[in-house]
Amino acid sequence: MTSASTIPAVRADGRGVDQLREITITRGWSKQAEGSALIEFGNTKVLCTASFTEGVPRWLKGQGAGWVTAEYAMLPRATNTRNGRESVKGKIGGRTHEISRLIGRSLRAVIDTKALGENTIVLDCDVLQADGGTRTAAITGAYVALAEAIEWARANNLVKKNAKVLTDSVAAISVGIIDGVPMLDLPYEEDVRAETDMNVVVTGTGDFVEVQGTAEGVPFKRAELDSLLDLALVGTTELALIQRETLGL
Amino acid sequence: MTSASTIPAVRADGRGVDQLREITITRGWSKQAEGSALIEFGNTKVLCTASFTEGVPRWLKGQGAGWVTAEYAMLPRATNTRNGRESVKGKIGGRTHEISRLIGRSLRAVIDTKALGENTIVLDCDVLQADGGTRTAAITGAYVALAEAIEWARANNLVKKNAKVLTDSVAAISVGIIDGVPMLDLPYEEDVRAETDMNVVVTGTGDFVEVQGTAEGVPFKRAELDSLLDLALVGTTELALIQRETLGL
Amino acid sequence: MTSASTIPAVRADGRGVDQLREITITRGWSKQAEGSALIEFGNTKVLCTASFTEGVPRWLKGQGAGWVTAEYAMLPRATNTRNGRESVKGKIGGRTHEISRLIGRSLRAVIDTKALGENTIVLDCDVLQADGGTRTAAITGAYVALAEAIEWARANNLVKKNAKVLTDSVAAISVGIIDGVPMLDLPYEEDVRAETDMNVVVTGTGDFVEVQGTAEGVPFKRAELDSLLDLALVGTTELALIQRETLGL
Amino acid sequence: MTSASTIPAVRADGRGVDQLREITITRGWSKQAEGSALIEFGNTKVLCTASFTEGVPRWLKGQGAGWVTAEYAMLPRATNTRNGRESVKGKIGGRTHEISRLIGRSLRAVIDTKALGENTIVLDCDVLQADGGTRTAAITGAYVALAEAIEWARANNLVKKNAKVLTDSVAAISVGIIDGVPMLDLPYEEDVRAETDMNVVVTGTGDFVEVQGTAEGVPFKRAELDSLLDLALVGTTELALIQRETLGL
Amino acid sequence: MTSASTIPAVRADGRGVDQLREITITRGWSKQAEGSALIEFGNTKVLCTASFTEGVPRWLKGQGAGWVTAEYAMLPRATNTRNGRESVKGKIGGRTHEISRLIGRSLRAVIDTKALGENTIVLDCDVLQADGGTRTAAITGAYVALAEAIEWARANNLVKKNAKVLTDSVAAISVGIIDGVPMLDLPYEEDVRAETDMNVVVTGTGDFVEVQGTAEGVPFKRAELDSLLDLALVGTTELALIQRETLGL
Amino acid sequence: MTSASTIPAVRADGRGVDQLREITITRGWSKQAEGSALIEFGNTKVLCTASFTEGVPRWLKGQGAGWVTAEYAMLPRATNTRNGRESVKGKIGGRTHEISRLIGRSLRAVIDTKALGENTIVLDCDVLQADGGTRTAAITGAYVALAEAIEWARANNLVKKNAKVLTDSVAAISVGIIDGVPMLDLPYEEDVRAETDMNVVVTGTGDFVEVQGTAEGVPFKRAELDSLLDLALVGTTELALIQRETLGL
Repeated sequence: MTSASTIPAVRADGRGVDQLREITITRGWSKQAEGSALIEFGNTKVLCTASFTEGVPRWLKGQGAGWVTAEYAMLPRATNTRNGRESVKGKIGGRTHEISRLIGRSLRAVIDTKALGENTIVLDCDVLQADGGTRTAAITGAYVALAEAIEWARANNLVKKNAKVLTDSVAAISVGIIDGVPMLDLPYEEDVRAETDMNVVVTGTGDFVEVQGTAEGVPFKRAELDSLLDLALVGTTELALIQRETLGL
Repeated sequence: MTSASTIPAVRADGRGVDQLREITITRGWSKQAEGSALIEFGNTKVLCTASFTEGVPRWLKGQGAGWVTAEYAMLPRATNTRNGRESVKGKIGGRTHEISRLIGRSLRAVIDTKALGENTIVLDCDVLQADGGTRTAAITGAYVALAEAIEWARANNLVKKNAKVLTDSVAAISVGIIDGVPMLDLPYEEDVRAETDMNVVVTGTGDFVEVQGTAEGVPFKRAELDSLLDLALVGTTELALIQRETLGL
Repeated sequence: MTSASTIPAVRADGRGVDQLREITITRGWSKQAEGSALIEFGNTKVLCTASFTEGVPRWLKGQGAGWVTAEYAMLPRATNTRNGRESVKGKIGGRTHEISRLIGRSLRAVIDTKALGENTIVLDCDVLQADGGTRTAAITGAYVALAEAIEWARANNLVKKNAKVLTDSVAAISVGIIDGVPMLDLPYEEDVRAETDMNVVVTGTGDFVEVQGTAEGVPFKRAELDSLLDLALVGTTELALIQRETLGL
Repeated sequence: MTSASTIPAVRADGRGVDQLREITITRGWSKQAEGSALIEFGNTKVLCTASFTEGVPRWLKGQGAGWVTAEYAMLPRATNTRNGRESVKGKIGGRTHEISRLIGRSLRAVIDTKALGENTIVLDCDVLQADGGTRTAAITGAYVALAEAIEWARANNLVKKNAKVLTDSVAAISVGIIDGVPMLDLPYEEDVRAETDMNVVVTGTGDFVEVQGTAEGVPFKRAELDSLLDLALVGTTELALIQRETLGL
Repeated sequence: MTSASTIPAVRADGRGVDQLREITITRGWSKQAEGSALIEFGNTKVLCTASFTEGVPRWLKGQGAGWVTAEYAMLPRATNTRNGRESVKGKIGGRTHEISRLIGRSLRAVIDTKALGENTIVLDCDVLQADGGTRTAAITGAYVALAEAIEWARANNLVKKNAKVLTDSVAAISVGIIDGVPMLDLPYEEDVRAETDMNVVVTGTGDFVEVQGTAEGVPFKRAELDSLLDLALVGTTELALIQRETLGL
Repeated sequence: MTSASTIPAVRADGRGVDQLREITITRGWSKQAEGSALIEFGNTKVLCTASFTEGVPRWLKGQGAGWVTAEYAMLPRATNTRNGRESVKGKIGGRTHEISRLIGRSLRAVIDTKALGENTIVLDCDVLQADGGTRTAAITGAYVALAEAIEWARANNLVKKNAKVLTDSVAAISVGIIDGVPMLDLPYEEDVRAETDMNVVVTGTGDFVEVQGTAEGVPFKRAELDSLLDLALVGTTELALIQRETLGL
């Protein structure tokens, strides 16, 4: 429990500053994919699917290693006002690209590509409803879909029975400073007001995979950075437990 | 009940030739959109949202009439094997375009654009899981989302209280001939085997909005066309009832 | 002769309701293509070429079957006011895609792909002047170009001498209801006024390949659908005769 | 007559080195455009249309001057083997761009944009059949379409009755050196063999609008350049006469 | 001086672990832009220009605030092997997008947009030669170009004489862990070997604008994160001094 | 020395009509490329790099010949006002395409592709600062980069020791008629005023590779063409000397 929790909470949804929103993970949501999870962080809903295919991209062939990549997207009316489809515009926006790359890097951090063998797993994270924290929900849910796909591959003899393909679990959460107070897991209305916004990706063991802090308004101090990291670890620890339960580990 | 039902059914899912799959419509699925419905035709799941905005495209300004349009898309892993995202490819495929246009035309057929006033409604139909009949599910669900959005607009004084914006309801179903037998509401495994495939869009009153029949293999006879239309009407009559119940009419 | 012809005709061009416009097919128009036809439905002029190449797309290799596909396009000033070029816009519109797909399906319906062998034929249908019915003219003309290309291939020993590559002929016509009266082969000025618009693709034998009926305004009744189909068959029967004469069969 | 004609001609089509192919210009080919011409240089056939619209692009507004621009394109099967459509590829090739710009510049050289007033004319030059010299045929034909469109505008009081919008005529021809011999108006089979290839755009008065000479193999000498220009002037003088006759001047 | 400097340096270029490469900033490099700087971090060379224009994008009009944005790109042969041009590919890669956005955010953090008034400044950062740290060099150089452009605007009465448009300076540096040792300002050969890679953007005052840490291989510990931040601050403090000298402050 | 030099010069920069601007070529500017040169024609600065790779494009394989191609581009703020990036627009403009093709053709004119063997050289010409004559500077600088790359290939045994890969040198210059006076090497302010503008590409031997003359306003006479060519040869002769010195030949 961090000291942040002693600050009187004034969050619109009644949460304490170090409390997550209600988290729900429905694994096996899709009948078609090798792995899937519908993850909800409050009103944020992301459908994560994992597609397993034998073989790897050409530039990786013959090296005995697999490949994991991710694509993130948002339905046009996942948000309060409609956004034009990127397929109709004919190009992907910078934000979409950036988040897709972040998800991919985050999951590769817990994959032993040699143990995966020359196989490819594509994670699709489609935001059905957006209320802040879509990228962190996507990473957290994608891990579950990825774990399912690896189980499936093991059951189908596409990876070795004893291969430890996943070296750890991975989860992510957003933290931010609002009116000077560090807070955990920001919904949209908090996110737009945050002076500093940080997304933190952490393994089940508690090490960092990615730390991305951004001053939206005033630059932030080292001490603020520290308390945001403290808070993030509270969140990712809890998410790691939920992931484990969901997967029945 | 059509005579078709006397033919001994040999459908994989145990249905009679003139039976619909289990149909579920969850209205108000989205917290963000002015209207929404998650529609399921068996394993086919389509999320339909209606986005209401004041004003019309430039080419329609000043004519006192509104505009209704639609966009259809599929999540990359809605299908058995993953399809590349159209946003990543940078262009929309012909099939997507064609279905988007079909949905738009179908809904405009039951809209009085003058009664709608200078407002625009965009229907987004995103296939979350595909098992045949996605375009017909999309039309049927989009009607419910559209009706919700018009209720919302009326409640918010954006259309006149007494204006009859919707002149009728509209629903759609697929029919096809498999091994010489006309069948209603084809799932994917039947669809790929169908010699003739037809999508029929029908109003609540029972008139045709759109009839699209295609010989996949052998060209079809006039008599076959007739029995397919009979069968389609059985389906759309039932769908119209379900729509009415869903909307509490 | 259908009963429709007894209705007093009030068509701007003096035709009876069941009369085609003047149809002209000039085969061999192009010196470069393996097959070609310039087809005219009144003022509508479409140049159809068939390009024969050995080999098939990768996904079809090794199956002993050929491939037939089509592309439709319109010159920018084929119409009354200039339309921007799709090549300049950098993408193909939905209507173009839809018609290209329709032409391809229509011709594949009369091709025995096994008899064609592992060869590809691409039909290009470029509208030089547009006055309604461009897609139906394109299908009707493309059949002639296709037949020429197959003759050429036979003469060049690229398909077997006795192989019956074409299983039938195929032609298409538009029909529509104007002021309540079903009419055959609509020029542009009738097309824009039509309450219901239908394109019908029919084999030489009189079976249906494609039926696409759309309510532009009021939904249409079953009886109207029936009389439109009657009328369409009058037109396609005549077109099949003209095709046969053009090809000297 | 240039001295070049004394060299024994060995051209495949029997022409002398300073002879044009058969030139045909059919004005008014299109029923839709304000001006049009189908021009043939032997087997090369280009359909040129001129679209007249009131108003000018934004960057030219309020300056009392008009705008003339051009777009060149080739049907996919205008050539011996099919080329993919630029609209399908989603981008215009360098050659297309380059020729479109050349045609636009060539026609603007004989337009008094002040006399044209704030109006825009777009020339579309679509190659229906290509056998060398398509860009020069396009320029020569586009001039006729342009002249027609200006007549039309005058008749419709869109340009002033006495305004001399066209300051001169313009025509273009290709010349090249083949086996050391300068030749006029190269068909495809000569064009591919030419060591030097030159396109020359000349006004009715005999002045140069554009000279584009390219060494395909060995660089060319000043004397060769001179004899190519001599030959080109023979061709453009003749084309100017044909243009004048076509327009009834 | 951080404790890191006591670790025996084993860097290929002879630097200590907490030493920057040779930094050169040539301001006013471009004769055309309102502000410009050629910045060199060792062999990394980035040309930064600032383009000042009156007015703001439409969505910002009438709010009395200005806009600062950035675009980052790399010449195709800035790197060891040639990369295809993004203009030729027709789309911008995710990495380019991500860095452009990072530069824009970093500079906006030190701009008072109200003091800037309704003016727009676009920073172009083009990498002429790449040897690691291109994004941090770009931010550091873009600040100099930005400061020049604001001076220019002040001299030209486009911003108020006394307006404090820049609230602070901003600079950026990369840090990373190589063979377990945290190091400052990584050239390419170190960057590819780094287990953890971090880019840190810091104001002249020493506060954080952006912290982006990524585990390339093994996830990193909190203590490692701390020593990387210590090291980064050593670098950005020195860069802030160099910026000040360059600008003659 | 041409007679043109007797005309009293009134050029803004004090040059005589037949004088080049100050020409500087810095070879080996890039540490990464196999060949490179930064070329300056007065304020025009173009960075030219040559990328040598083994192998040729697929359509050229197995013929024992190499391939040389070029890409030209301009930094967005090379010019007086900023131009949007072509990578952001998603397509390359006509001018860029045209110049890239011109550079490629010019260099191929002095390459013996058989002597080059199955290798590819890509010339990238990026305009860092533009003040007229960018394409001619690009050709002249690209030749130096090309020569360096071939030296490099020879030193690395990728082309034969004795193979004469370069058959000649090549350089280019612009000439134009301003206020009736032919002038050499036009900077931007002269270029926009030129009635006729010509780019001439000439080998070291003095033969023409490319002549591109364009009437910007009034069409030009044969005599004017002749004096422009005279003037161009003065310039290219001098450039050939500078190239030779730069390469130490």
